[in-house]
Amino acid sequence: MFQQKFPSRPIWLDESDGKIRIIDQRRLPGELVISELNTVDDVISAIKKMMVRGAPLIGVTGAYGVYLAFGENQAAADYKAAAGRASLIKAARPTAVNLAWAVDRTLEKAGQAPPEKRAEAARLEASAIAGLEAENSRNIGRYGLPLIESIAEKKPGKPVNILTHCNAGWLACIEEGTATAPIYAAHRHGIPVHVWVDETRPLNQGARLTAWELGAAGVAHTVITDNAGGHLMQKGLVDIVIVGTDRTTYTGDVANKIGTYLKALAARDNNIAFYVALPSSTFDWHLGDGVSEIPIEERDPDEVRYMPGFEKTRENLLMPEGSAAANYAFDVTPARLVTGFITERGICRAEEEAIRQLFSKSGLNRKSPENS
Amino acid sequence: MFQQKFPSRPIWLDESDGKIRIIDQRRLPGELVISELNTVDDVISAIKKMMVRGAPLIGVTGAYGVYLAFGENQAAADYKAAAGRASLIKAARPTAVNLAWAVDRTLEKAGQAPPEKRAEAARLEASAIAGLEAENSRNIGRYGLPLIESIAEKKPGKPVNILTHCNAGWLACIEEGTATAPIYAAHRHGIPVHVWVDETRPLNQGARLTAWELGAAGVAHTVITDNAGGHLMQKGLVDIVIVGTDRTTYTGDVANKIGTYLKALAARDNNIAFYVALPSSTFDWHLGDGVSEIPIEERDPDEVRYMPGFEKTRENLLMPEGSAAANYAFDVTPARLVTGFITERGICRAEEEAIRQLFSKSGLNRKSPENS
Repeated sequence: MFQQKFPSRPIWLDESDGKIRIIDQRRLPGELVISELNTVDDVISAIKKMMVRGAPLIGVTGAYGVYLAFGENQAAADYKAAAGRASLIKAARPTAVNLAWAVDRTLEKAGQAPPEKRAEAARLEASAIAGLEAENSRNIGRYGLPLIESIAEKKPGKPVNILTHCNAGWLACIEEGTATAPIYAAHRHGIPVHVWVDETRPLNQGARLTAWELGAAGVAHTVITDNAGGHLMQKGLVDIVIVGTDRTTYTGDVANKIGTYLKALAARDNNIAFYVALPSSTFDWHLGDGVSEIPIEERDPDEVRYMPGFEKTRENLLMPEGSAAANYAFDVTPARLVTGFITERGICRAEEEAIRQLFSKSGLNRKSPENS
Repeated sequence: MFQQKFPSRPIWLDESDGKIRIIDQRRLPGELVISELNTVDDVISAIKKMMVRGAPLIGVTGAYGVYLAFGENQAAADYKAAAGRASLIKAARPTAVNLAWAVDRTLEKAGQAPPEKRAEAARLEASAIAGLEAENSRNIGRYGLPLIESIAEKKPGKPVNILTHCNAGWLACIEEGTATAPIYAAHRHGIPVHVWVDETRPLNQGARLTAWELGAAGVAHTVITDNAGGHLMQKGLVDIVIVGTDRTTYTGDVANKIGTYLKALAARDNNIAFYVALPSSTFDWHLGDGVSEIPIEERDPDEVRYMPGFEKTRENLLMPEGSAAANYAFDVTPARLVTGFITERGICRAEEEAIRQLFSKSGLNRKSPENS
């Protein structure tokens, strides 16, 4: 681990030495630490420990993991062994569907290549997925921008107040982010924006990562507790909510970081637009009922019991020693609470028909949006 | 400051030396620290710094502050000077109405006494208010118990899952608490209960205080992030929500710790009962529209930026140094989201007519509930 110049992506294959490197997101904003992923075990550990997190990013990380799996088994170019390793990568985190999608896709491409070319095919596919996600984010920004523009037109001279939860920024993706892509686009277009950043307990991805990203980009923002959003909406201090998602059913139900559902309820109660920004890789084309069917990861209760990023000492315990804690990582926002999806192909309602109209069943479309 | 045997109230007038003592709630659960309140300035500081907090408790603390005000001005028994000091106490925190109510009431009683008896009259009234709040809590427990009993009857052998936000326990009141009173009553009656304790950022009153209280009383509980309640409700893991309140309009709108409104929305969305437990001293008989009229305290943003109870060092900063934070302390849950009030006179709907039927306009009733 070492510090280096500010990277522009949270994961990259370093051309100079062929190594895969990531920003260790557990250490931000205090330190910018770069780590190497040299083995499949490194990949699984990085995903489980949330050195990398965010649905598109763990997809890309998983894809690079498949490349490493073929590298490890290169002697025999053993497809079966690599596929076995890949299934372990997919199991590293259960909720985000991008992980399984990217791993399966990379495995398939490698399988189509002759044995001696499999590792290379996997590497190329992982890079292609990274490039695709970056392009998706840019297009999400392009399609989301008019939503912010139209609010700005109605309150000239005043900033557009956007609330977001967790981190769906470039750190969670590859470039630009999902929820943040329209925000960055608006900022570049000179539209005054101000972002309410939900702290996002227990791991504080909002306070640590989103605030760091926005600050670095010069976007005005204020960190709030996860409790505060409802009050801000009641007081007219939120114009629009934009969040990311880890898995979205074809019917429009949205699994995202725990607490998202509460903000969606408050937005509905106050007649505020609630948008979810996502690349099509986040759709699960097999699930129709998000609340009952999307698996919700339960993580180590110690993430709730102790301060994130602090040692597990008695001093850093946030509650009595004898008290239990529970740590559900995601919740599901039903489609009925979602105003719309901002995708790489455009905006659509959170309804099966509208989603299917915009996407082919494969869920992946390499073409640019029609009007771009 | 010194440690002593576990006190049974969070504030008391020590008979042995005539001093007013409090539990310094900022230090729990790590340490049980007892502090003296010897001057009006001590009282104001204790309320502002949240050494004492919770609507009924800051009312009682304010009442003892009036006693100290007369003590400080005893030579002249100067009513005007004491009244001036009392108005500073009332301004220490703006949202809870109990503070103004208890201060005004104590001042009035002192004013009715001859000059040389004013300090004593104030002391007696402060003690009477403390006794009244303790009795109110016991009656809230009695009236709330059947709500929990009736749930228990429908799921024999399984615990009744109760979600609460912040601390509306005996630490916030005098004895038994408000939201916790029915829980303690159920526990004593052998009804299996399990409490989901919202952490309650930024000052973690749930994780620190409610968990400590429940643990000490042997009540099963699990601490969760403020983000988690909606998911638990979607999954059928919450049977009833019970919270306290800092100010309640005569129309039934409820100002309580920030984030309460989000839980009320989730309870409504999942058809779960949402009860607010309160003594009548928490009603504001002058306000009809909670969202627009109840003043919401904005506290020091550093309470959000740094871990509560930790030094304000760069290491303990939860977000980038350059990021702003906002710290609204309360939100307002509209009456339409409240299933009912559990009061010292019984349960009523969150509607003006039902509230007025139960209480006289003065808002204070010394009589026990009719059926007790």
